[in-house]
Amino acid sequence: MPGTTGADRRELSIDPTRLTARLDELGQIGAIPGTIGCARLALTDDDKAGRDLVRTWMEELGLDISIDGIGNVIATMPGFDPSLAPVMTGSHIDTVATGGRYDGNLGVLAGLEVIETVLAAGIELERPLAVGWFTDEEGARFPPDMLGSLVYVGGLPLEDALEIEDRDGAVVGDELDRIGYRGAAPTPGRVPHAFVELHIEQGPILEDEDITIGVVEGVQGISWTELTITGQSCHAGTTPMRLRHDPGYVAAAITTFVRDLTRELGGSQVATVGRLDLTPNLVNVVPSVATMTIDLRNTDEATLQEAEARFRAFVEQTAEREGVSVDSRTLARFEPVEFDPRVIDIVEQAAERTGQSSRRLPSGAGHDAQMFARVCPTAMIFTPSVNGISHNVTEYTEPADLEAGANVLLDVMLTLTSMEFST
Amino acid sequence: MPGTTGADRRELSIDPTRLTARLDELGQIGAIPGTIGCARLALTDDDKAGRDLVRTWMEELGLDISIDGIGNVIATMPGFDPSLAPVMTGSHIDTVATGGRYDGNLGVLAGLEVIETVLAAGIELERPLAVGWFTDEEGARFPPDMLGSLVYVGGLPLEDALEIEDRDGAVVGDELDRIGYRGAAPTPGRVPHAFVELHIEQGPILEDEDITIGVVEGVQGISWTELTITGQSCHAGTTPMRLRHDPGYVAAAITTFVRDLTRELGGSQVATVGRLDLTPNLVNVVPSVATMTIDLRNTDEATLQEAEARFRAFVEQTAEREGVSVDSRTLARFEPVEFDPRVIDIVEQAAERTGQSSRRLPSGAGHDAQMFARVCPTAMIFTPSVNGISHNVTEYTEPADLEAGANVLLDVMLTLTSMEFST
Repeated sequence: MPGTTGADRRELSIDPTRLTARLDELGQIGAIPGTIGCARLALTDDDKAGRDLVRTWMEELGLDISIDGIGNVIATMPGFDPSLAPVMTGSHIDTVATGGRYDGNLGVLAGLEVIETVLAAGIELERPLAVGWFTDEEGARFPPDMLGSLVYVGGLPLEDALEIEDRDGAVVGDELDRIGYRGAAPTPGRVPHAFVELHIEQGPILEDEDITIGVVEGVQGISWTELTITGQSCHAGTTPMRLRHDPGYVAAAITTFVRDLTRELGGSQVATVGRLDLTPNLVNVVPSVATMTIDLRNTDEATLQEAEARFRAFVEQTAEREGVSVDSRTLARFEPVEFDPRVIDIVEQAAERTGQSSRRLPSGAGHDAQMFARVCPTAMIFTPSVNGISHNVTEYTEPADLEAGANVLLDVMLTLTSMEFST
Repeated sequence: MPGTTGADRRELSIDPTRLTARLDELGQIGAIPGTIGCARLALTDDDKAGRDLVRTWMEELGLDISIDGIGNVIATMPGFDPSLAPVMTGSHIDTVATGGRYDGNLGVLAGLEVIETVLAAGIELERPLAVGWFTDEEGARFPPDMLGSLVYVGGLPLEDALEIEDRDGAVVGDELDRIGYRGAAPTPGRVPHAFVELHIEQGPILEDEDITIGVVEGVQGISWTELTITGQSCHAGTTPMRLRHDPGYVAAAITTFVRDLTRELGGSQVATVGRLDLTPNLVNVVPSVATMTIDLRNTDEATLQEAEARFRAFVEQTAEREGVSVDSRTLARFEPVEFDPRVIDIVEQAAERTGQSSRRLPSGAGHDAQMFARVCPTAMIFTPSVNGISHNVTEYTEPADLEAGANVLLDVMLTLTSMEFST
């Protein structure tokens, strides 16, 4: 095996006890009482505590740690040829407000586990291995999601990212300073040799088919829109229906419309209204303003564009009929991503070599890996989610599946170190 | 004129400058910057400041002031026969969160103006005149609305009312203590000889028909329901539509259903979804819980019951189809009220005698007067609302209409002092 010295990689496997112990310990930070879930919204105090913990583990392994201007943290195990770009893995450790302990965290801690396993075996590699976590992947606090990896690959200028505000007016740059994670490493960051991310599926397919490893071929396109609908606040008892300009009604009509649209478009099309706020939000007052978000996703860009166009047309017609005005803002828009066929093959072969069942599938969620797909050969590995549940405190993946996924990651990363990609 | 001494009542009229000056001064408390509106939610610090101001004015006139256990404040001008029950007027001085300065306040300050006018003229009456304000009429903080007058007439035991909580868990009894308005006067309160309330219309009818005085024949029935819809929070990207249990979608379907229902039932039927909260309320998470209110009103009890039944059936069907559970709670339920024909006639004659145009109409909103209709002869007087707008910072009534309304109130109250009602 070129570029490798030390023990035969085929004898290597990760330590499942250490991996689950670290997942448990990290899950204690921001733990939601009475559940196995946790809440570490990006750049909050709990996110900082989680970062500090994982950073300690990285330091204990003697890895080189760099922190860039958006707070991405990369830990590198050097190779013996310093001119070579690393094989990188990574994910995120921020969560949604009612999140689980596996989403994102698994990819970071399994990456750390891979490096610790390689180090413990005394294997020396020509290429560096790196594991990182990327800021605000969830986008649950600061839009867009995958913010840190987007900045890492040069998809958004750092100065623009630093000015993004959350709903309460807190600013990314200030929050990074506050928790001490605005670093000096430059963005865009160094382009990896290849990138692979291990993640829970967050959907029901692997469990339904009793398959352990998902070989991820690509990621759905994502379209997030925020609408601010302004009508006329008035008395709920005295205003005849024909004289109303009710933005809450318009928001409801949009919500049922996008549900109907998914049925009509079929395929992978999904649509979600996750956020809705009425002003003044009182039982006996017709609202003056409704603010809502619409999340549309599809693996097919043309169908996603059709969904967007029909959604926009419905909003326009309904607003006109009700006599309300609408301000529309794009919070995120990512085209569907296709991963590198060579890396996809390597993942599939690694599953076979480690004795795991596998199937190819697309990712319904956005992931940091899709940003790296812009700059280097990239793919992803999925492990099953019990009941397909994620973004929920009951999110769970069986320990045996965590172990299998991390061993596939180990195999893939070592293969990638000796893989040459002609560009 | 029996029971009256002093100046001829036909020469009397209220002082419009003093009335509007007091409305302006009270409107400064809780004023919403950049508007003529104000926010004095019941039992807040701003409500206390408003109460203190109006109480000072009552004290300056030497009136007998009583405060009962729910914080209703009644100021009485004694008659020369202490055994007789008063002719009472009154309304409320709490507002919604984005309210105007006329809703409720006009009725209280015009009542004060009537008494000051009678006092200034040196008229002595056999019967007392009384003006009061009633706690939490809006129900915008503590359900149900018209809480204070409901307790005054014995419709709700005081001890139950004192335990009602707002959305943040603050309790009526504690808040009354905090602002110093839990009084010693007993509830139910003394039954008045008759009750009449002056209020802005809060709707567009009088202005549309260029009429100054509304002779209110009754009040729409009100049905307030709060639904807590519980589904399954999950990831907005990875969960196929067929596997979703989305309470936000159900809330939206209910919102559009009740709009359609008003069109189908026609007549005076109105329906409003004024409050809706999603949990966790994030762009990329299917909500776990939706909490919403539905406000249904009709002048006809049978049709209101039909609306309620069809609404309940739709909720049940839709919840079952989506696989969510629903908890339903009645926040308020008042049957339509018919005012006393004799008092209605007196209001109509007073409009004619003071040279004002008038028409009979129902009230779309609930008012304290409807509580008094349970215990004594009662009616209401409406003045126009510009553009029909109320529960909004742009709520406005022309000074000439305020004056006309207050003079009709003066005439009606004096007539009622000498009216004998056979029960």
